[in-house]
Amino acid sequence: MAQKLTLKKIAQDLKVSISTVSKALRDSYEISEETRKKIQEYAKQYNYKPNSIALSLKNQKTKKIGIIIPEIVHHFFATVISGVEHVANEKGYQVIICLSGESFDKEVVNMEMLANGSIDGFILSLSKETMSKQDFHHLREVINQGMPIVMFDRVADDIPGDKIIIDDVTAASEATDFLMRKAKKNVGILSTVDYVNVGRLRTQGYSEALMKRGVEVNQDLILKIEDIDHCDELIEKFIDNNPSLDGIVAVNELFAVTASKILLRKGKRIPDDVAIVAFTDGMLSKYSNPSLTTIGQNGYEMGGIAAAKLIDRLEQDQKDEERYETVIVKTSLIERESTP
Amino acid sequence: MAQKLTLKKIAQDLKVSISTVSKALRDSYEISEETRKKIQEYAKQYNYKPNSIALSLKNQKTKKIGIIIPEIVHHFFATVISGVEHVANEKGYQVIICLSGESFDKEVVNMEMLANGSIDGFILSLSKETMSKQDFHHLREVINQGMPIVMFDRVADDIPGDKIIIDDVTAASEATDFLMRKAKKNVGILSTVDYVNVGRLRTQGYSEALMKRGVEVNQDLILKIEDIDHCDELIEKFIDNNPSLDGIVAVNELFAVTASKILLRKGKRIPDDVAIVAFTDGMLSKYSNPSLTTIGQNGYEMGGIAAAKLIDRLEQDQKDEERYETVIVKTSLIERESTP
Repeated sequence: MAQKLTLKKIAQDLKVSISTVSKALRDSYEISEETRKKIQEYAKQYNYKPNSIALSLKNQKTKKIGIIIPEIVHHFFATVISGVEHVANEKGYQVIICLSGESFDKEVVNMEMLANGSIDGFILSLSKETMSKQDFHHLREVINQGMPIVMFDRVADDIPGDKIIIDDVTAASEATDFLMRKAKKNVGILSTVDYVNVGRLRTQGYSEALMKRGVEVNQDLILKIEDIDHCDELIEKFIDNNPSLDGIVAVNELFAVTASKILLRKGKRIPDDVAIVAFTDGMLSKYSNPSLTTIGQNGYEMGGIAAAKLIDRLEQDQKDEERYETVIVKTSLIERESTP
Repeated sequence: MAQKLTLKKIAQDLKVSISTVSKALRDSYEISEETRKKIQEYAKQYNYKPNSIALSLKNQKTKKIGIIIPEIVHHFFATVISGVEHVANEKGYQVIICLSGESFDKEVVNMEMLANGSIDGFILSLSKETMSKQDFHHLREVINQGMPIVMFDRVADDIPGDKIIIDDVTAASEATDFLMRKAKKNVGILSTVDYVNVGRLRTQGYSEALMKRGVEVNQDLILKIEDIDHCDELIEKFIDNNPSLDGIVAVNELFAVTASKILLRKGKRIPDDVAIVAFTDGMLSKYSNPSLTTIGQNGYEMGGIAAAKLIDRLEQDQKDEERYETVIVKTSLIERESTP
């Protein structure tokens, strides 16, 4: 038997993007009439039925949850999945995982695949490309079919659904304040470029903490890293340019442990000369030398809440769309050797 | 519509194990006639069709691959998945991941779920519980239905299918020999208990390397760790009991980095006083201080080979069961600061 016609196949055959096919089939004004017509006729000719199985199984429960995450080599996402598995299994649900690999197209095709009758609902953290495109039509499509989506960490504010996030501004502010309470006078931040949400929000929290204590924000003490693969050189230059630096907030443990190694190599003592607090409580923070004080993002808890929210919504009889919730999961400061 | 009857549901309803249900439905002699009859009648009464969808779709390709792995918070498995994704996507296949959580029952139900028409074939690393039970009936069932399985890392020797493994004995032998060539005279090994395959094989490789150079194996220099959560205390005692220890082979990076921290705390210099080589080339090895010389298991490559093997088998017309292959992936020694 032939391969089933999918969005991807239509896109390949007609040499247009997956997103264009998807939008044309929904008759979106964003696509020219000519292209729309061509795609719609092709789909009709080959009898393409968008999510036909999903429609026919509308009332049949699969007792399965689909997770789509950007990547797997990342402690945070791994802990979220463990949390989802725990709660889902307890409630008799099985879990299927797909990876977007930070690609918009892969997110769209994986979503189409799982929505085709394989699962009852989604738990989702958006790919970087989706965030930068701000194109959420695939989420709307699935929601319009009556399939609930719970988003975590990287969420689309305007999409109806429950959202599980941490308060990055408050967490970064607390970390900065913690260093200042330890008598650190020149606290800097190792952050990412602003288009990455968490980097922007954590830099904001850092600045707010300084201002609350009447300390002026010094732009020299803010490093915005774009290219993670070359963070070594950037961090070393940052340290050399700021000889009075005595505290560091890092938006991830990789930046923190890199800074720690460079400081030790230069003969600085941690935490006496420079203290460090890092986001992400992963293996690196726990086992590096010195071990790192971190802000735990409680991924396991986030995953559990996401699963519970989704299953609640799947098992309630009435739709209650007005009552979508955004849950803010508390972060926790875990003190280790890198702070006094 | 009601929930579909599954192995799990039958097991719950009749208060027997999933494995018992699965075996009874295949009329296995391992299950008493009474139980067999009870289960078969129940299944018949509720019209249970084992993998009925899979049978009906036998010739329809889904262009999807299912992966079942023990856990996700583990750098090695994450890199294998990346390798599978890369090759599978290139060849137009999508990838679905399920976790066994080291549980036999979860492995069985996930396998049943995915075999039900969702995918064309499996890539699998067995759960610890499956390895210790040596119960592979669920693999046989899927293979009997004509669905190929490629196993990696934790494999079942007697099950027909391609296997992708590393040569643990040779890798550990090379690591040990490397330390001896660096003039280390008293090399020890931090291993696991023998029922964990990799621990047993790596200890064997360590011993062979010593014997090849005419060094007698000293049991005091072999530590077999069962409880990973309390490895600190065991490793500290091991170090105290072996004051002449000048080299360590560790079967994972966690043991290595724990030993490194304890040695530094006791005023030893790495690598001058004690040199360290660890299995698993993960983040910890790369970013710990000092960074660790490791034996890379090339998970990305393993995943790629597994995907290529499976897709080859899916796309060949003739079954060629006599020619299942076991591919041994070469490990690579990555030198860093923990060795001279």
